Amino acid sequence: MLLPEPTLRRLPWYLAYVNMLAQEGVGKVSSRRMAEDLAVDASQIAKDLSFINVRGKTRIGYDVGELESALKEFLGFASGHNAVIVGAGSLGAALMNDVGLNHYGLKIVAGIDTNPTIAGTSIGLIPVYRPDELPHIVSSMGIVIGIIAVPVEHAQTVADELVAAGVKALWNFTPRRIRVKPGVVVTNTSIYSHLAVMYNRLANIDTPRVSK
Amino acid sequence: MLLPEPTLRRLPWYLAYVNMLAQEGVGKVSSRRMAEDLAVDASQIAKDLSFINVRGKTRIGYDVGELESALKEFLGFASGHNAVIVGAGSLGAALMNDVGLNHYGLKIVAGIDTNPTIAGTSIGLIPVYRPDELPHIVSSMGIVIGIIAVPVEHAQTVADELVAAGVKALWNFTPRRIRVKPGVVVTNTSIYSHLAVMYNRLANIDTPRVSK
Repeated sequence: MLLPEPTLRRLPWYLAYVNMLAQEGVGKVSSRRMAEDLAVDASQIAKDLSFINVRGKTRIGYDVGELESALKEFLGFASGHNAVIVGAGSLGAALMNDVGLNHYGLKIVAGIDTNPTIAGTSIGLIPVYRPDELPHIVSSMGIVIGIIAVPVEHAQTVADELVAAGVKALWNFTPRRIRVKPGVVVTNTSIYSHLAVMYNRLANIDTPRVSK
Repeated sequence: MLLPEPTLRRLPWYLAYVNMLAQEGVGKVSSRRMAEDLAVDASQIAKDLSFINVRGKTRIGYDVGELESALKEFLGFASGHNAVIVGAGSLGAALMNDVGLNHYGLKIVAGIDTNPTIAGTSIGLIPVYRPDELPHIVSSMGIVIGIIAVPVEHAQTVADELVAAGVKALWNFTPRRIRVKPGVVVTNTSIYSHLAVMYNRLANIDTPRVSK
């Protein structure tokens, strides 16, 4: 089921939260406590969780273990998605070293870099290849996701190459908007956009917050 | 001026775009060309840019250099904001090594790590300190932003320590929602939330896209 993006962004918060509760040995959580701890309306939480067919019980609340596995399964974090990362610079290398991504269903199986001193080596046990090896790698390794971590001026070219090689989704870490043919998924993670929001809020700390 | 978040997120796209045009030697850009290249409605672009008092001229469009400096200035990328990063693991170290952040006005001047083999060293020329040194560092270095790059279960504790030390904004890279007193800015960059959106779109590639 295609979910609204705001709901999809909140579900991992809920998962991180119930993971923590599970580690603390908590078995049940009321929607009121969840709402307080997460600063999200209880009615919103109930609505979000209804999408994944989880419902709390009156006066008992949600079963933590059940909620944890339902969220992990629904979010696709329980299954593996093979990915290639293009650009093994500081950001790309960091993602290759981030073992945490594995827990969220992302298997980075290959890197690509134009630098001849990097191509042919491994970063965090992941082999790095030359750009001309991309089409072969995508088909032979069953890669569905291409991660773009190159300098911004190469973002569109790399996107085109990844789509031509057959990936179904692009995860774009550059601030450049990239264009793709219909049917290809694009997710943008532009940390610089987040900086812009932060600076604006900082400069207006005494101005009342605009509600979303 | 406190801007709507969607506008603030688009402004850095425009900046990356005009940066590129400037590098290519382009002097003017029409709102139609911008709209096509960025896949954003021309009317939306005009509205966004009116917030920063930039207006295009009929039949000529926007002046690329003027737009570039107005955006950079407005977004706060032209001025420096001192930041400390707590957690010098793979993500934290990557951010410390990412010289690109400097161009966006973020000056990471210190790191904090509990690991005694890391505290006392430098990463990317940035000194790493022990957790008990945090209050002194924040006041003596004029730090306004605290970056949270610790494991998720420590996110709230670190947030509390940063706020107690006097930072005005938190940039939270964990999937945990953190709670702060009013007047402290929180920006969340949860890459795992973006993965959730991507997986859901991938699993529904043939389903019509929900409009935002």
